[in-house]
Amino acid sequence: MRIDILTLFPKMFEGVLGESIIKRARKKGKVDVRVHNLRDWTDDKHRKVDDKPFGGGPGMVIKPQPLFDAVSALKRGASRVVLMTPQGKTLTQSVAKKISGYKHIIIVCGHYEGIDERFRRKLVTDEISLGDFVLTGGEIPAMALVDSLVRLVPGVVGDRDSLEFESFASGLLEYPQYTRPAEFRGLGVPGVLLSGDHNKIDVWRREMAMKRTRSRRPDMYKKMKEKK
Amino acid sequence: MRIDILTLFPKMFEGVLGESIIKRARKKGKVDVRVHNLRDWTDDKHRKVDDKPFGGGPGMVIKPQPLFDAVSALKRGASRVVLMTPQGKTLTQSVAKKISGYKHIIIVCGHYEGIDERFRRKLVTDEISLGDFVLTGGEIPAMALVDSLVRLVPGVVGDRDSLEFESFASGLLEYPQYTRPAEFRGLGVPGVLLSGDHNKIDVWRREMAMKRTRSRRPDMYKKMKEKK
Repeated sequence: MRIDILTLFPKMFEGVLGESIIKRARKKGKVDVRVHNLRDWTDDKHRKVDDKPFGGGPGMVIKPQPLFDAVSALKRGASRVVLMTPQGKTLTQSVAKKISGYKHIIIVCGHYEGIDERFRRKLVTDEISLGDFVLTGGEIPAMALVDSLVRLVPGVVGDRDSLEFESFASGLLEYPQYTRPAEFRGLGVPGVLLSGDHNKIDVWRREMAMKRTRSRRPDMYKKMKEKK
Repeated sequence: MRIDILTLFPKMFEGVLGESIIKRARKKGKVDVRVHNLRDWTDDKHRKVDDKPFGGGPGMVIKPQPLFDAVSALKRGASRVVLMTPQGKTLTQSVAKKISGYKHIIIVCGHYEGIDERFRRKLVTDEISLGDFVLTGGEIPAMALVDSLVRLVPGVVGDRDSLEFESFASGLLEYPQYTRPAEFRGLGVPGVLLSGDHNKIDVWRREMAMKRTRSRRPDMYKKMKEKK
């Protein structure tokens, strides 16, 4: 999978792309992630990428020219152009799965500004939002998308990685986890986990996962029940 | 506002904390954000922070000792301890607003592993999830939370920053934005925006925002209508 990221703040990505699972996936050659500065495509002599909005109002709008030229330069055949925007489809595991099926995506991050509507209409194929909260730009949402995609590339995630953050694969929240010591500053561990009886442990974990899901995420619990 | 972040991957934060709005807020002294390596608090001679789960199963679980000791060291009085976990409350603008009212928060990031339940029960005051998708750890969610919080600190966000990504403040998605040139490679701009008639422009923008919200986010549209 090839991922090109277009941003005005390429340095924001350094920490995340150079660490953890994304780093390993890149080293193994499973994904090719590149970050590009949108400013490199501007034909303005002052390298300005934004301008005032037509019709007035606060803020600045990213000009169509650098966006069109950057995407034309990076596109090859069936590339998807994903805009990170609060107006997009909310990212969920099924959205991530769909996008992970594409061979090449170009992720476009806005940053405080709006983005010229002509670019959105002509070249953007997918619009993704991280959720209903206000962020400064599309950079952190792009990182979340890339992390979720990289995990879905076959051969990237081993057993070790697959625990707590897998909640949404099963449709249930995770059961409680404990590790040594069995007694820590007066706090114990549920006896069943120390029993060695794997049937009992499975039943207990399933019950706890159900109970937790029902109390914390009734919406998810309902969906899970309906699927059955 | 003071924010302490506890993570096994402190380098992941370098790009995000050193750029953009978070950097400016830190420079202005509006927020004090510090990143700590959880490993620095382990009393294990090999600096191991995790161990196998009681009851078996894949993955590793973060041991209670470094978590308890790190939080004890960082806590002062009424500090809130926020765990980033898929089992938490989904981050929304109203959740961010509530948390932004706290003077001091300690954000704990899990990373592939689970986290010992005794820590969760004894010391965690808030559990926050970024959404229903699988990520490798709590680091990117922590960045999103910090960005959303920093924006809410008075004096951090200026007019310039307040456009596209403000969608959720008004309960409507943003209207389409355009900037110069008025004609770009055969693509024009809606005439009303060039009319100079500010009443007309306001009406058009409101209509477009309503239309877009109704078609893309019927859930949000319904809520907005109910509020009226």
